[in-house]
Amino acid sequence: MEKKENFSEWYAEVVELAGLTDKRYPVKGLNVWTPYGWKLMRLIDEIIRCEMEKTQHQEVCFPLLIAEDQFAKEADHIRGFGDEVYWVTKAGGEDLDKKLLLRPTSETAMYPIFNLWVRSHADLPLKTFQLVNTFRYDTKQTRAFIRVREIHFFEAHTCHIDFEDAEGQIEEDLKIMESLAKKLCIPYLVLKRPEWDKFPGAFYSLAADSLLPSGKTMQIGTIHQYKENFAKPYEITYEDEKGEHRYVHQTTYGMSERLVGAIVGVHGDDLGLIIPPDVAPYQIVIVPILAKGLQDKVTLECEKLKEELLKAGFRVHLDLRDVRPGSKYFDWEIRGVPLRIELGQRDMEKGVVTFVRRDTGQKKEIDRAKLVEHVSETLREIAENLLDMASKFLLENTKSAASLEDIKGKAGIFKVGWCEGEGCGLEMEETTDMKVLGTPMEKEEYKGECLVCKKSTEIVVYLAKTY
Amino acid sequence: MEKKENFSEWYAEVVELAGLTDKRYPVKGLNVWTPYGWKLMRLIDEIIRCEMEKTQHQEVCFPLLIAEDQFAKEADHIRGFGDEVYWVTKAGGEDLDKKLLLRPTSETAMYPIFNLWVRSHADLPLKTFQLVNTFRYDTKQTRAFIRVREIHFFEAHTCHIDFEDAEGQIEEDLKIMESLAKKLCIPYLVLKRPEWDKFPGAFYSLAADSLLPSGKTMQIGTIHQYKENFAKPYEITYEDEKGEHRYVHQTTYGMSERLVGAIVGVHGDDLGLIIPPDVAPYQIVIVPILAKGLQDKVTLECEKLKEELLKAGFRVHLDLRDVRPGSKYFDWEIRGVPLRIELGQRDMEKGVVTFVRRDTGQKKEIDRAKLVEHVSETLREIAENLLDMASKFLLENTKSAASLEDIKGKAGIFKVGWCEGEGCGLEMEETTDMKVLGTPMEKEEYKGECLVCKKSTEIVVYLAKTY
Repeated sequence: MEKKENFSEWYAEVVELAGLTDKRYPVKGLNVWTPYGWKLMRLIDEIIRCEMEKTQHQEVCFPLLIAEDQFAKEADHIRGFGDEVYWVTKAGGEDLDKKLLLRPTSETAMYPIFNLWVRSHADLPLKTFQLVNTFRYDTKQTRAFIRVREIHFFEAHTCHIDFEDAEGQIEEDLKIMESLAKKLCIPYLVLKRPEWDKFPGAFYSLAADSLLPSGKTMQIGTIHQYKENFAKPYEITYEDEKGEHRYVHQTTYGMSERLVGAIVGVHGDDLGLIIPPDVAPYQIVIVPILAKGLQDKVTLECEKLKEELLKAGFRVHLDLRDVRPGSKYFDWEIRGVPLRIELGQRDMEKGVVTFVRRDTGQKKEIDRAKLVEHVSETLREIAENLLDMASKFLLENTKSAASLEDIKGKAGIFKVGWCEGEGCGLEMEETTDMKVLGTPMEKEEYKGECLVCKKSTEIVVYLAKTY
Repeated sequence: MEKKENFSEWYAEVVELAGLTDKRYPVKGLNVWTPYGWKLMRLIDEIIRCEMEKTQHQEVCFPLLIAEDQFAKEADHIRGFGDEVYWVTKAGGEDLDKKLLLRPTSETAMYPIFNLWVRSHADLPLKTFQLVNTFRYDTKQTRAFIRVREIHFFEAHTCHIDFEDAEGQIEEDLKIMESLAKKLCIPYLVLKRPEWDKFPGAFYSLAADSLLPSGKTMQIGTIHQYKENFAKPYEITYEDEKGEHRYVHQTTYGMSERLVGAIVGVHGDDLGLIIPPDVAPYQIVIVPILAKGLQDKVTLECEKLKEELLKAGFRVHLDLRDVRPGSKYFDWEIRGVPLRIELGQRDMEKGVVTFVRRDTGQKKEIDRAKLVEHVSETLREIAENLLDMASKFLLENTKSAASLEDIKGKAGIFKVGWCEGEGCGLEMEETTDMKVLGTPMEKEEYKGECLVCKKSTEIVVYLAKTY
């Protein structure tokens, strides 16, 4: 498996060999979450839940099926999603009077109910989220976790008294993104999408873009300011302190199983996956090195190691299969377990165990008596190293460019001057065969000209090929 | 709210007032899980997950959409579910070549993949489960948690080398049911459903039936022995130790959000819900009793109580709303919080807090210094009392009957002699306007005659009206 040679092939192969998903399900674009992949996804979900709880969001679960008339209420929204929804037209042998669609996202399921939940300013802010599957009949080539038709999805939906309060929510969302991405060791850029690429119905859209080794970016999270755009058609109003009725201002924050795709793509290497310790289904695998006749003693000691580590709160697996250690190393390397502990008779005599780091391959003898302490420290070092390497890659591949022709079809992210005109933006996309990702959230010092119309500008825009 | 007068009305009202679900979603039979209800459901799910983990089941997540040809493979199965499935016929503006259906249950989604996963005896037993939503276009009157069209569902699916091994799985499932139901304080009967009411495709079906105060039973769990009935059409085979190919034997175990319905129905009273401590979103609510001018001191002490209880691992809420204590009592009684703690100035001076049990209304002064200990004990007592009361109700309402006419339309469960003939069973159902629930798992001593054909028999069968 050569990651640098052919990233696409490597990605497909490693996902399959590591057993993260099964693509053989007999309906295109729908994959099976196998136990290992689902455990990884659930660990990510739990981090999100924890962040949501800390910020007083409440978990809800809205129906999957949406009535056509509810879906059609916000004009931009239906224009944006109408072409990729699945329609339920029959049930129990009859044609339905009213067609139903599978949620592509839940605005149009939730907002008729938010209309009922929000009455007064005392009901605000309303902060909700759900973890559900959504459906998009995407006709592009499918790719595990990155482009699928049934999508494991996180969506937070909030209502606020005014624009300012909604802006505060977006700041909170950005902090949550930061905290989560740190645990996944995934660096990203926060970019404000151009007008023509914002979420259908949004006032503006921010996206977190990560960079995969292919040099293409992948959106791993989006945060939208809706202003009153949905509140008006869904009539979500509240009575303010003076008794006047006002529309709420809304935001959403979305992420998906693409986070798993990012972990695979960003951290993996030619040996397989490397899973960040905070979300690794197994953080540690213990492999006994058995000399003939001494199995029992070593195995017993390995069981003790395992118990000790479980008790300390680690996710740990003891591999007692009847195969050579080398073959065990191979399997757990593919599956990306961050730390391997080897223990044999000689180690026992010396009072040590051997640590092997998945990220660096580094081997080290560790004082058995200080096991837990060393494990904590090593997992922390692995996470730091993964984030460092990925950050370095992102930094090295984000470059300024002075000509559109020069970067045409190139890998990486390019910063160019832009007049903010939609025409110039679209021409940039055409000339470079890339997408305009948007302008950076944090203002960058720039003085130059728009690479299309040559007007002088202080705005830079980011360009890249995307997933 | 009078539970005994009109259970149906009481149920609908308490579900709404307690805020467990929102029934105003604009598509019939699809309800919104509100934060309080969803938290309760999730706590139940976590108990199930924990039981599954202890018994080495692996969590998976299969697609929602099933291809028509896969669904049609097992003849009884499609006969059983065909009339109540939702069909996706269009996507992205086009008619689909191959219709897709929303899973009513996941046999037909999983088994084409089990066909690939199971190769050799070393792959067995295969023990999987998932927690997903399923869809049944049920045309009967809907009722929150009890009869809905989108169902929050637990399903375990296992494959075994032979019938015996599958039987062992069923024993394990029964133990899991026991352990879960104890935490929910729900007594139940395990009955083997008659042939005409078994799961479509099953060899036999066991059901756990609880009894609601209306005198109707509600199925809260089912366990099925499939034998080779699905393995054959889906060709799920393994190579045994001698190199011969054999069909696996399969079992499933299913439960749903009906568990929430059972908690509402079995434990609630005229004041509202009573939620068993193990699954209560809040196990304890603290209500400060504020005398004028002393707010700060009492509030501060309540905060301390809360911290202490949180630290001890309890789910606790401190109600600091600016309303009278009586109105707080009222709200939390409706929502079924098992234990209320009141604290005022006088309690502080005496070094006590006041406990009020939701199940009995009993008030008791508790030594402040032994708070955690007393909370643990009281919650345990509440759980015991809930289970005792419900068990007593089930026992008192399960009676032997010597004539079918006598019990016609009556409330409760009736045991009658049965020759095991389907004709006699169906006639019993017609005469009594009840359902034949089945025969008890544990053989009961009986000597009598079939109440229809008068043949002498040692078999009793249970009859009741059902949800």
